[in-house]
Amino acid sequence: MASRSSLMRALRAPAVSANASKSSRRAVAGAARAPSAATSNPAGIRCLSTTPQRLVAPTLARPVKLTTQTYPNLKRDSRFATVTDEHVARFREILGDNPSAIVDGVTGPIDEGDLEAFNEDWMHKYKGQTRLVLKPASTEEVSQILRYCNEQRLAVVPQGGNTGLVGGSIPVFDEIVISIARMNEIRSFDDGSGALVVDAGCILEAVDTYLAKQGYIFPLDLGAKGSCHVGGNVSTNAGGLRLLRYGSLHGSVLGVEAVLPDGTIMNDLCTLRKNNTGYDLKQLFIGAEGTLGIITKLAIHCPQRSPAVNVALFGLESYEKAQLAFREAKKQLSEILSAFELMDGKSQQIVSLVKGQDKPLEGDHPFYCLIETSGSNGEHDYAKLEAFLEDVMTREVVADGVVAQDETQIKELWGWREGITECLGHWGGTYKYDVSIPLKEMYLLVEDTKARMEEAGLLGDTDDYPVVAVLGYGHMGDSNLHLNIPVRRYDPKVEQALEPFVYEWIQKRNGSISAEHGLGIAKKNFVGYSRDDTMLGLMKQIKNLYDPNGIMNPYKYL
Amino acid sequence: MASRSSLMRALRAPAVSANASKSSRRAVAGAARAPSAATSNPAGIRCLSTTPQRLVAPTLARPVKLTTQTYPNLKRDSRFATVTDEHVARFREILGDNPSAIVDGVTGPIDEGDLEAFNEDWMHKYKGQTRLVLKPASTEEVSQILRYCNEQRLAVVPQGGNTGLVGGSIPVFDEIVISIARMNEIRSFDDGSGALVVDAGCILEAVDTYLAKQGYIFPLDLGAKGSCHVGGNVSTNAGGLRLLRYGSLHGSVLGVEAVLPDGTIMNDLCTLRKNNTGYDLKQLFIGAEGTLGIITKLAIHCPQRSPAVNVALFGLESYEKAQLAFREAKKQLSEILSAFELMDGKSQQIVSLVKGQDKPLEGDHPFYCLIETSGSNGEHDYAKLEAFLEDVMTREVVADGVVAQDETQIKELWGWREGITECLGHWGGTYKYDVSIPLKEMYLLVEDTKARMEEAGLLGDTDDYPVVAVLGYGHMGDSNLHLNIPVRRYDPKVEQALEPFVYEWIQKRNGSISAEHGLGIAKKNFVGYSRDDTMLGLMKQIKNLYDPNGIMNPYKYL
Repeated sequence: MASRSSLMRALRAPAVSANASKSSRRAVAGAARAPSAATSNPAGIRCLSTTPQRLVAPTLARPVKLTTQTYPNLKRDSRFATVTDEHVARFREILGDNPSAIVDGVTGPIDEGDLEAFNEDWMHKYKGQTRLVLKPASTEEVSQILRYCNEQRLAVVPQGGNTGLVGGSIPVFDEIVISIARMNEIRSFDDGSGALVVDAGCILEAVDTYLAKQGYIFPLDLGAKGSCHVGGNVSTNAGGLRLLRYGSLHGSVLGVEAVLPDGTIMNDLCTLRKNNTGYDLKQLFIGAEGTLGIITKLAIHCPQRSPAVNVALFGLESYEKAQLAFREAKKQLSEILSAFELMDGKSQQIVSLVKGQDKPLEGDHPFYCLIETSGSNGEHDYAKLEAFLEDVMTREVVADGVVAQDETQIKELWGWREGITECLGHWGGTYKYDVSIPLKEMYLLVEDTKARMEEAGLLGDTDDYPVVAVLGYGHMGDSNLHLNIPVRRYDPKVEQALEPFVYEWIQKRNGSISAEHGLGIAKKNFVGYSRDDTMLGLMKQIKNLYDPNGIMNPYKYL
Repeated sequence: MASRSSLMRALRAPAVSANASKSSRRAVAGAARAPSAATSNPAGIRCLSTTPQRLVAPTLARPVKLTTQTYPNLKRDSRFATVTDEHVARFREILGDNPSAIVDGVTGPIDEGDLEAFNEDWMHKYKGQTRLVLKPASTEEVSQILRYCNEQRLAVVPQGGNTGLVGGSIPVFDEIVISIARMNEIRSFDDGSGALVVDAGCILEAVDTYLAKQGYIFPLDLGAKGSCHVGGNVSTNAGGLRLLRYGSLHGSVLGVEAVLPDGTIMNDLCTLRKNNTGYDLKQLFIGAEGTLGIITKLAIHCPQRSPAVNVALFGLESYEKAQLAFREAKKQLSEILSAFELMDGKSQQIVSLVKGQDKPLEGDHPFYCLIETSGSNGEHDYAKLEAFLEDVMTREVVADGVVAQDETQIKELWGWREGITECLGHWGGTYKYDVSIPLKEMYLLVEDTKARMEEAGLLGDTDDYPVVAVLGYGHMGDSNLHLNIPVRRYDPKVEQALEPFVYEWIQKRNGSISAEHGLGIAKKNFVGYSRDDTMLGLMKQIKNLYDPNGIMNPYKYL
């Protein structure tokens, strides 16, 4: 168990030997606990996600409501045709005889379980009614499918790893699901420039594992990496854990191949870092959530992998001190700072409770910060980290802290951040908001929301109260807060207290109601809190230009 | 004068004391020459550009040809109205009585010199025929001007610092110039997040100087920083010297305020790093070269300024060794590498000849590389640089080298890279190509072009030959080559030998014919070498959507 004094002692211990090889992880002298039994993954390539498949929410067993029941005002768009046997025959022509290329609940009876994985999200929050899933194996097949769907006015939903949180990849009515899971080849990698070309259906973790062998890293990392597709990451402009260091996908994606609704293949698969030949159209597809077309391949600039990684976890007395710690980390750790994550005390209490594990630091702290450094020289990084820690502890910015000693402990510390999402589902459900707010006021949203729940008599420790807790965590380095309200049951009273309150609160501070999770169906009606009518009008122009029949991922986004 | 042995000795000298303060520049023990008289700038904030105003090419005194003479096939678009006294009266109404807001050669006689600065580029390569320059002071004025121009079918050219190389900001016929020079306020800076909001007419160097005082840096740097506007930088998606470290503007620009041709003000001036609320429309304006609208304000993410900067210059025996050095620099210097620039021997001979200065390294080397590191800890950075240098010199990757000892020497070494453009103009003119090519074959373009000039009997040392030299330099870290052909006179034979040869050569290697300089009028007809017809068609759709009357910067871009 770490305490401030033991941490300081550990930090003052003699430095360990320098990196032996490029791929070895530098062990930092620290005071972390012994590894728990839960972290049984063999040390090797760092794998932030220890959840290989996010298909089932941990405790929610009850039947999932149809999205159309949750949103009773949604009506099926009468412009769209219903899938017929004739349509399916045409799709079979395009996709060939491969039985893995189609899940057909249209032309005959089918095991409904086969459709379920495509009709439901992993949190069991959204449920669609598709009867047909198509799994093309090539860009050309995607093109033929979309051209035909466009001609026939068949609505479609592009689906990647189905790890989204806003229902973006789940059909609402009977839209055809187009899964790109079979398009999963790594096409090329230039180990001089770091330019990688991959199919959109590659799983993020698989790509990163491939890159690790070349000494490179994918510039994006997130909890769902074991399931999510890189095409989905780009389509949703995923942010994640490395944005602080490597920037957004708008900067790192070099090229995109996408199929437009009319079947046009847009070949913008450039692998160069600089290319000023005309409008940068690929940018429109980054974050379009499949409403303009389907991304089939992408080229991305990958940085070199840092051989030295250090992780530290701190307890802090207040949000003001967390801001101070962040400012100092940016200044003192500068080019080696690769993550600065914030977790409030309540989120850590819940992880501890649900996992049945003691927290890495003694006692309860109102706030915790997880800092990661990545650099090319372990000795240098450790010296910087040591100086930083001495400074923030001497000045009492930080109350207590622990530094991971090895790869296992690095994973364990990350587990206290990455385990939050799943632990919150313990009581039955979670209201989730992924927002961006100027740093100074960021955590105030949690406090104000908590006060509102208390005033409304909705928050309490017994089954009489729907709300278990109001808590916040997120990517402090990106001003990105995840406001979460775990509940014992979904309750209209809670929803009425939350919305539009949360959105209005954000609007007043010029924040974003959707930082990195996308709009999907969850936030479609709230975009106006972050965008004015002019912007929304201009966006709708773009949608109409590319998808005049509206067949791409309808009922969502805008 | 540095030699390999003296450099190695210097590198092995005892390390100097650690940084005294955050803003002090760490002096690196090295073997650089004494500072030349040319670098008289006082040490302080690093200013890469020592050319405050790029208005006049050094030696070209002859009358400049009209762009319409250079491109005789261009015809004035008859859809556009000619500016009348009535139009000018309306503009005066919008802009008020301020005499600095308008340069009017329409309603009466005027000193032609007043129009010249807006009708000609700094290289005297392009010359337009505008009779009217408008200088709005606010977004609202820009909006009123554009709305009126759109109604009246008056063509316009947005103009920033007029430092471009492809004629993008110079009128061709009588288009009205809209200069944003009067819109030059720094609006806000958040020293927690690094988010800066500025008017588009701010001069890059002024903004960077402001940021330096806050301990931050603008994520873009280029030779013309003393004159160019940040709005122009974003409109042309400028690349420059810091892209290797801080990435492209598509990643660092957080928000844009732009006025569309119909006067609509697009307020996308977000200051958050993460904002997934709809299509990222601002991206279309980054690199649109003023063909979709006028950027009036921008928000950009600025990184913290590195207190320690080191610069080294090497001589190398071959392009293969330059590639090897780059690979090692990326690996060993990793997170502190902030520039890796390539210059061939010929370019350095010319700078030496024109400036009348000895080169920093003895003798002639076929290639030179300039490396810059920027980090938070001078001791650490120096240790990394020392290890790197020992490695590449021991393995004879590098033949000779020199490390700058202080701020003055840093500037002097940079001068050998940044001085190339202007020294090449010494003989009268330069054919310039700014291209991106996969690294392996990048320099081959210079060799092949040189062979072609020799075969055609165009290259020689006397006045009988139009071509002085064929040479290359550029941003090796970004696969970005500047192929330059300094000439004694512009000659159709040279042009015929160069084009379409150069473009076809690039097309075969999937390169980009325009890496960072933009298309302007110079490359309008050659975009097809880097983009297929589908892409060009999609781009033209976007142009028609935003600017159906085609009034924005006509005759250029696509």
